[in-house]
Amino acid sequence: MHVMIIGAAGMIGRKLMAALARQGAIGGQAIGRLTGVDIVTPDMPDFSGGGEAIAADLSADGAAERLVASRPDLIFHLAAIVSGEAESDFEKGYRINMDGTRALFEAIRREGEKRAWCPKVVFTSSIAVFGEPLPEEIDDTFVLAPLTSYGTQKAIGELLLADYSRRGFLDGIGIRLPTITVRPGKPNLAASSFFSSILREPLSGKPAILPVDESLRHWFASPRAAVGFLLHAAELDTGTLGARRTLSMPGLSATVGEAIEALRRIAGDRAADLIRREPDEAVARIVASWPKKFAAHRATELGFRAETSFDEIIHAHIEDELDGNLPA
Amino acid sequence: MHVMIIGAAGMIGRKLMAALARQGAIGGQAIGRLTGVDIVTPDMPDFSGGGEAIAADLSADGAAERLVASRPDLIFHLAAIVSGEAESDFEKGYRINMDGTRALFEAIRREGEKRAWCPKVVFTSSIAVFGEPLPEEIDDTFVLAPLTSYGTQKAIGELLLADYSRRGFLDGIGIRLPTITVRPGKPNLAASSFFSSILREPLSGKPAILPVDESLRHWFASPRAAVGFLLHAAELDTGTLGARRTLSMPGLSATVGEAIEALRRIAGDRAADLIRREPDEAVARIVASWPKKFAAHRATELGFRAETSFDEIIHAHIEDELDGNLPA
Repeated sequence: MHVMIIGAAGMIGRKLMAALARQGAIGGQAIGRLTGVDIVTPDMPDFSGGGEAIAADLSADGAAERLVASRPDLIFHLAAIVSGEAESDFEKGYRINMDGTRALFEAIRREGEKRAWCPKVVFTSSIAVFGEPLPEEIDDTFVLAPLTSYGTQKAIGELLLADYSRRGFLDGIGIRLPTITVRPGKPNLAASSFFSSILREPLSGKPAILPVDESLRHWFASPRAAVGFLLHAAELDTGTLGARRTLSMPGLSATVGEAIEALRRIAGDRAADLIRREPDEAVARIVASWPKKFAAHRATELGFRAETSFDEIIHAHIEDELDGNLPA
Repeated sequence: MHVMIIGAAGMIGRKLMAALARQGAIGGQAIGRLTGVDIVTPDMPDFSGGGEAIAADLSADGAAERLVASRPDLIFHLAAIVSGEAESDFEKGYRINMDGTRALFEAIRREGEKRAWCPKVVFTSSIAVFGEPLPEEIDDTFVLAPLTSYGTQKAIGELLLADYSRRGFLDGIGIRLPTITVRPGKPNLAASSFFSSILREPLSGKPAILPVDESLRHWFASPRAAVGFLLHAAELDTGTLGARRTLSMPGLSATVGEAIEALRRIAGDRAADLIRREPDEAVARIVASWPKKFAAHRATELGFRAETSFDEIIHAHIEDELDGNLPA
């Protein structure tokens, strides 16, 4: 089968490509062709089958049509500009996140009009589709009421995915990812950056800044769990989904204090003590409005699995990013 | 003030235009200019101030920009193609209902970039944004999960309205209308047509067909109530709305049997006996999946009012459409 990953240069995209190349099959079918797409040419993993890396902007005229002309059997659509940029650049956010997604779905519909074709499409949405006021625990029937342009664009993507699936133009499944922690790489300007850096930096012997109170609760899953969600979504029989094609993924509801305690258990006081408290009102105000917990019943019943403790999340990072090593 | 009604040739649009012309003011401000817009040139009511009728297709290049260049203070956006047509013509539905709405909002944003301007925008959405499985009573935090392309397009309109409002580009309020009954005019091909015709036709001494069981429950308001919702929305201080800019309107939850009993009370057996039972499985299946009842707490608290019995709905029709007369 032919698998295409759009957004293959991103953190999750790279890990997903590597997992697909490593396992060489999905849902019991051998992967004969693997195509990575991103706004810049993505690095391709070692892959015994045919691999191709393509640079393309979905929102550019004709780009989506050219991509789907190869009629992949399975398309992962992970491409998006992030929350902060979608907020600071209104037009770019709508162009990439909304128009780009619609252009992909439209190109699939039109390609299918030429000759029958209904690819599986796995779309990554976000818990940013939800906004205050929020219940203690967000269940599977809670209103989509985003408080950012990014969340709005993702919610629109979910609605289009459901309608294009209902019409039989594509076979879609959307997954709302928790905040992914521990992200590898460097701290960035996202308000959520500290969730990863307070673990990642100390685990590498470096200091980190905590801008919020330790009592702050949020919703987490590891990059490893995120890749697991995507692979499971790709293999899932969507006949069991009904018309509601996007699912809130399971995750871990935990406080920042619990994350630090897990770090202390695993890497010792020396690591945990590298975290410096520097309260930042602006960051605290933003993250205070974010979801704290989900009752992700549908996804759990369908077999999606996330970590159940911060110890697991930290161990996944040590194994996947640090070759199993702690700082000396 | 300058008031523009887009969708002014439709049933609700005409009644809204007439009400605005009649009262000559809204929210305590005199209406100095009244502009009616539709795909065909709408009829204008008698109006002492300046009135203008414009034929325009919002989704056509430059049309929305030309419309908003006159910078109305208040814009009612009622224009849409109906559910049945949006389902049978996929591309037209998205072009008119989604692209047209977005084009309007974008034109307002760009006009406001030239010189500060933030018009009030009243947008009509629909209970078609909800889809099965549904609770007995749909509350204000229930998930938007439409089962039609029309419902999808309306849900996307709601999301855009909220984001453009949050950004300060416009001051939006959306209202989800119940099924409007009794619609004047002729029976049409909509699956919901019988809800009106079983009352309207007998009230004019004509036979009507009932394709469903009398036990079918649904959610209703009169055209008069719909106009009242629109006027109230236009006058409402949106500061009380928060980020969730679209409200499920109040209505009457009643069975078809209750509607017929009210008809019998008001117009007698001779009228009620003009209804012929002709069960239609296809219609029954469609309407069985529609919402039956809402807990429209937010809208009710904000002062929106609908009828509380079918007697009221029928009396409104007799007064507004039949000059107060029953058939001899």
